[in-house]
Amino acid sequence: MKIKKEVTIYDLAKELNYSPSTISRALNNHKSISKKTIKLIKGAAEEMGYRPNNLAAGLRNNKSNTIGVLISRINRPFMASLISGIEETARKAGHNVLISQSNDKYENEISNCNTLYDSRITGLIVSLSMETVEMDHFQKFVDKGIPIVFVDRVPDNFNSYKVVIDNYTAGYSATKHLIEQGCKRIAHFAGAQHRNVYRERKKGYLDALREHGLPIEDNLIVHFKTLSFEEGNKATKKLLKMSNPPDGIFSANDTAAVSAIMCAKKMGVNVPEQLAVIGFNDDPIASIVQPSLSTVSHPASKMGAISAKRILDHSINTYDTGVSEVTVLGTEIIARDSSLKKAKVLESE
Amino acid sequence: MKIKKEVTIYDLAKELNYSPSTISRALNNHKSISKKTIKLIKGAAEEMGYRPNNLAAGLRNNKSNTIGVLISRINRPFMASLISGIEETARKAGHNVLISQSNDKYENEISNCNTLYDSRITGLIVSLSMETVEMDHFQKFVDKGIPIVFVDRVPDNFNSYKVVIDNYTAGYSATKHLIEQGCKRIAHFAGAQHRNVYRERKKGYLDALREHGLPIEDNLIVHFKTLSFEEGNKATKKLLKMSNPPDGIFSANDTAAVSAIMCAKKMGVNVPEQLAVIGFNDDPIASIVQPSLSTVSHPASKMGAISAKRILDHSINTYDTGVSEVTVLGTEIIARDSSLKKAKVLESE
Repeated sequence: MKIKKEVTIYDLAKELNYSPSTISRALNNHKSISKKTIKLIKGAAEEMGYRPNNLAAGLRNNKSNTIGVLISRINRPFMASLISGIEETARKAGHNVLISQSNDKYENEISNCNTLYDSRITGLIVSLSMETVEMDHFQKFVDKGIPIVFVDRVPDNFNSYKVVIDNYTAGYSATKHLIEQGCKRIAHFAGAQHRNVYRERKKGYLDALREHGLPIEDNLIVHFKTLSFEEGNKATKKLLKMSNPPDGIFSANDTAAVSAIMCAKKMGVNVPEQLAVIGFNDDPIASIVQPSLSTVSHPASKMGAISAKRILDHSINTYDTGVSEVTVLGTEIIARDSSLKKAKVLESE
Repeated sequence: MKIKKEVTIYDLAKELNYSPSTISRALNNHKSISKKTIKLIKGAAEEMGYRPNNLAAGLRNNKSNTIGVLISRINRPFMASLISGIEETARKAGHNVLISQSNDKYENEISNCNTLYDSRITGLIVSLSMETVEMDHFQKFVDKGIPIVFVDRVPDNFNSYKVVIDNYTAGYSATKHLIEQGCKRIAHFAGAQHRNVYRERKKGYLDALREHGLPIEDNLIVHFKTLSFEEGNKATKKLLKMSNPPDGIFSANDTAAVSAIMCAKKMGVNVPEQLAVIGFNDDPIASIVQPSLSTVSHPASKMGAISAKRILDHSINTYDTGVSEVTVLGTEIIARDSSLKKAKVLESE
């Protein structure tokens, strides 16, 4: 197979009978070149398959009109909505988006970070892996003036732009909802406690119990590794086999909540009468499982749009790396059949 | 804010009292430099924050150890598994993966293509957008000897590596399964017919009907735009309101199949007794909907692994751009409650 040689400005110069520097200026819309000549040269460049050498340009101005997105896992509906929000905003501003996932591994997050860094992205939007504690791999972006927006799963110990939801209030409200439905012994499916989102949700749960005079029982709080379906199934089985089982579960995600509903049904435990369940995220499965899952909805797409806007609006002159600029968004309780013990709506099937 | 200046080989040369060319050779493991010196120089480079200039290196050797993935939508479980397979194989070979999605838009596919091209990726793995017909935007990869693997949704008119499942046999088998369960009037939810996957699935459906002496009725074949939940709901409602409604549906994806089950239940039509349903993909929702959805399972992760291997093993010396090298993988029918009219397994709930 024959490989075409890269078309250079020298080839264009030869072909069009201009000096290489005129070609270069024309391609960069230099004011010393007439519009007519620019049009002519750009037209010929396009025709001859010249590709504006973004790599070389990158060496000079450190920009590629690309926003890098580094997330934990792409197969989460929340992440898909977040990315949609980022892409929509980025595309409107003529930016493209490159995505990489860490699969919740610290090591992968570092190598993805390096790949995106070497692509000279305009800015980076990150949702941390479940494992990440050390933040050194992000420092070089700061050193180069490349803006980073942490979104949803954000660090405690690193100053930057941050876009989060009010996880504490969401956890509090979800638990309060179960209490209002008559639950007295509410279990919690908790995520990794070094991640802000899960720590805050649990705090909200604990405070809701306290403020409503309900006891906090350690054996009703299950700490998950990844809040997977399998973990949820196992935890529910164990809880429901207790001599004094819980009558409610607040799960820090929908996946584990759905597994709780399915496990309870298999064990002959009625949802919501004997066990009310509320999840987190409002994933599509929440509407498909029966009874349908009550949950907390995220403004994921909006979080993405705000994050992208932070990158696009970023100016190294106005940004102070000594502080964090945090945007906090509200959430909403979506009450469905899995928690509505009172005034239960009967749906036709 | 102060931006750190990029550390260059000249800074390293000055600091370590070597010539710039020695520094450069050491960083590139040149045989003329002793291992001890290489170690010393690399250590100092790391410490001083020197970043191996992949952009400059890219200009020379057109490589970045990055595989580009260009897919339709990341929020599909099939795509997530495909990407997992790609990443696992790529990481083992020291490659990273950058992902971009077209959202099924031709225009986005073109601009993503350009962004990945300009990142000097080692190779490109593509699953075409629903809209794509013209293939010109891929030609420049071929011209530069950058391998492209089309996976799942592949072009008819473009020679390259291709990794697909046997969609025809899958469509035939899914339809035959419904026939064996006693269905006489089987509807089909079809996808865009210019995409190989949907065209082949429909062909399999038609041949299965023909070979089993069942009539082909045009009003039982519904052509969808995106096979969404909403489209599935609308189509099912229309079919079930017919004076002579179908007793089976073969849907080209699970999303539309799940919406058919939920719609039928709402309309008081028993699944599978009055309407047997089989989908395609074995998405997680297939196990969550009730009755659980029969479906066709894809070896998605394996398809990803094979695609990545094609890129890594690619050699411009052995590859002939005049032909396509196609890998075809088999699928499996997963029979669940939504289609098992005969010998229906009663599950404890």
